[in-house]
Amino acid sequence: MTRIALDAMSGDFGPTVTVPAALHVLSENDQVHLILVGDEAALTEHLSQASAAIKPRLSIRHTSQVVAMDELPSHALRNKKDSSMRVAINLVKEKEADACVSAGNTGALMATARYVLKTLPGIDRPAIITALPNMRNSYTYMLDLGANVEVSPEHLFQFAVMGGVLASAVKNVSTPRVGLLNVGEEEIKGNDCVRDAARLLTAADSINYIGFVEGDDIYKGTVDVVVCDGFVGNVALKTSEGVAKMISHYVKESFTQNILTRIVAFIALPILNHLRRRIDPRRYNGASLLGLRGIVIKSHGGADQLAFANAIKEAIREVEQNVPARIADQLDTFLNEKRQVG
Amino acid sequence: MTRIALDAMSGDFGPTVTVPAALHVLSENDQVHLILVGDEAALTEHLSQASAAIKPRLSIRHTSQVVAMDELPSHALRNKKDSSMRVAINLVKEKEADACVSAGNTGALMATARYVLKTLPGIDRPAIITALPNMRNSYTYMLDLGANVEVSPEHLFQFAVMGGVLASAVKNVSTPRVGLLNVGEEEIKGNDCVRDAARLLTAADSINYIGFVEGDDIYKGTVDVVVCDGFVGNVALKTSEGVAKMISHYVKESFTQNILTRIVAFIALPILNHLRRRIDPRRYNGASLLGLRGIVIKSHGGADQLAFANAIKEAIREVEQNVPARIADQLDTFLNEKRQVG
Repeated sequence: MTRIALDAMSGDFGPTVTVPAALHVLSENDQVHLILVGDEAALTEHLSQASAAIKPRLSIRHTSQVVAMDELPSHALRNKKDSSMRVAINLVKEKEADACVSAGNTGALMATARYVLKTLPGIDRPAIITALPNMRNSYTYMLDLGANVEVSPEHLFQFAVMGGVLASAVKNVSTPRVGLLNVGEEEIKGNDCVRDAARLLTAADSINYIGFVEGDDIYKGTVDVVVCDGFVGNVALKTSEGVAKMISHYVKESFTQNILTRIVAFIALPILNHLRRRIDPRRYNGASLLGLRGIVIKSHGGADQLAFANAIKEAIREVEQNVPARIADQLDTFLNEKRQVG
Repeated sequence: MTRIALDAMSGDFGPTVTVPAALHVLSENDQVHLILVGDEAALTEHLSQASAAIKPRLSIRHTSQVVAMDELPSHALRNKKDSSMRVAINLVKEKEADACVSAGNTGALMATARYVLKTLPGIDRPAIITALPNMRNSYTYMLDLGANVEVSPEHLFQFAVMGGVLASAVKNVSTPRVGLLNVGEEEIKGNDCVRDAARLLTAADSINYIGFVEGDDIYKGTVDVVVCDGFVGNVALKTSEGVAKMISHYVKESFTQNILTRIVAFIALPILNHLRRRIDPRRYNGASLLGLRGIVIKSHGGADQLAFANAIKEAIREVEQNVPARIADQLDTFLNEKRQVG
């Protein structure tokens, strides 16, 4: 039985979204036990629809506090010891849960997870990673997405190791192709940091490093894992959201210009819906905080029920694939390689 | 009469694209004189269609060399003194042309333009800027797009000044809103460089600085000018291209699944074409190398006739608006403001 702790008070909609998402996942997968962490009264209110069949696999852990979306990480860390976020992470630490999922404040989640769980040996800094759709009907992992706005070449190397492990575990590719995000493919391009990271990656036999990639390669599917610092990764992710929203705005506008275009839109509806499903960001909801001694999944704050359920499923996959232990093993291999070279 | 020198050998298609684009612009605008710079024989070959009416406003400057797309900027600078690129820039320097346009190697173009034309007083480094479409049926300027992968806060400040001048000159907004690209809107976000640049911008009365913006704001139209370093700007630009290509790939795939969807596609064709025109990147072709003592426009290497013609039109607009002189004036204001404060 896989046990997942949910920060059920988190996100823009709290229990209104997290509880129905939890019930949905429980009804689909009978090998999962979910622990709803949060205000018992608020949670119970949304549990009326729980069927008798799933109730034994659902429990509530009452907490009295909530971390606000705009709260400073340091403030949450010091003053919110009985928050739904903190207690969900504590359950992972105490091995009462195999993973936790939160749609809360990213900074507070990262700071709390790092403080409570600690990083894996060989990892200086955890990173945030997510899967993005690509043109090959597959997906590309990208990290870091904002946890580390300033990095060293060594950090980028560690991100590459972690991303490669996640890709091989979840995407099931034996030797995932790893690329470093840069402003051109030639070796002379970029800044010292990416060039030095490229040297470290080229020297590591066990990484399938294919070289520098550019922004459009994320969506071409040139590689399985795109590695960058958190500043660049965050901008690339938000920029992508912006382009997608603008295009969908113009699609809508084009099809609602007048009565004729509305008729065509009606005829084209199944195709437009098919298209929407293909690039639906809710399908890709659930970023991982990698490099910790435990599995922590971050859902988008604005997630609806479907999106939050996908974040829970991502947690289940990572538990099944034992991701943190595999990252630790991989790092061990590199540390040994280095010792032999040295 | 506005005189524009064209690096007619440049781009993936050379004179096949540049010459017809030139003829098109000349037929549309009788206040323009174009100088085709390149191999005379190759250029003449494509001139058979030139009407008698435009011939007096068209001249050829023969050159014997071409800068390759993958040539090192230092190599081009040293060994390609009779290249179409170098000579087109020389014509601007010698006041035989008011601006030049090239679809060539960006690095070589920037290095040569900087060497030949020099930067404006108060500008340490030229930057590359382009207009991107936004959801408000308008466009957002973004700079730097790749000329400066490492910058100081002072450089970002200079980019903001230059971007603001271009937006007010070409977009015709009196006090363009300027934002700094960051990983969040709160003052504590980001790295030291963007935070220090924010302080410089906040202190400058004559800049309408509205604060930090995120990647999606480029396409929301939150500001008129988005300022960032060339690494981040290049990744954001290429990422945008990647997302747009992926979506258009999936649109095509959805409408060509089977005979029924093909029929719907046929019915929806006028709408799909309208949509394509709305977000057609060729409409936005023509990035400016700002901060030089002269106007240099960079066209996309893969530009077709329509796209290259748009780059020529961008050059004409900047000549009409006297962009370099306006940047110099604006900088003078800031230097005076600083002196008064100090």
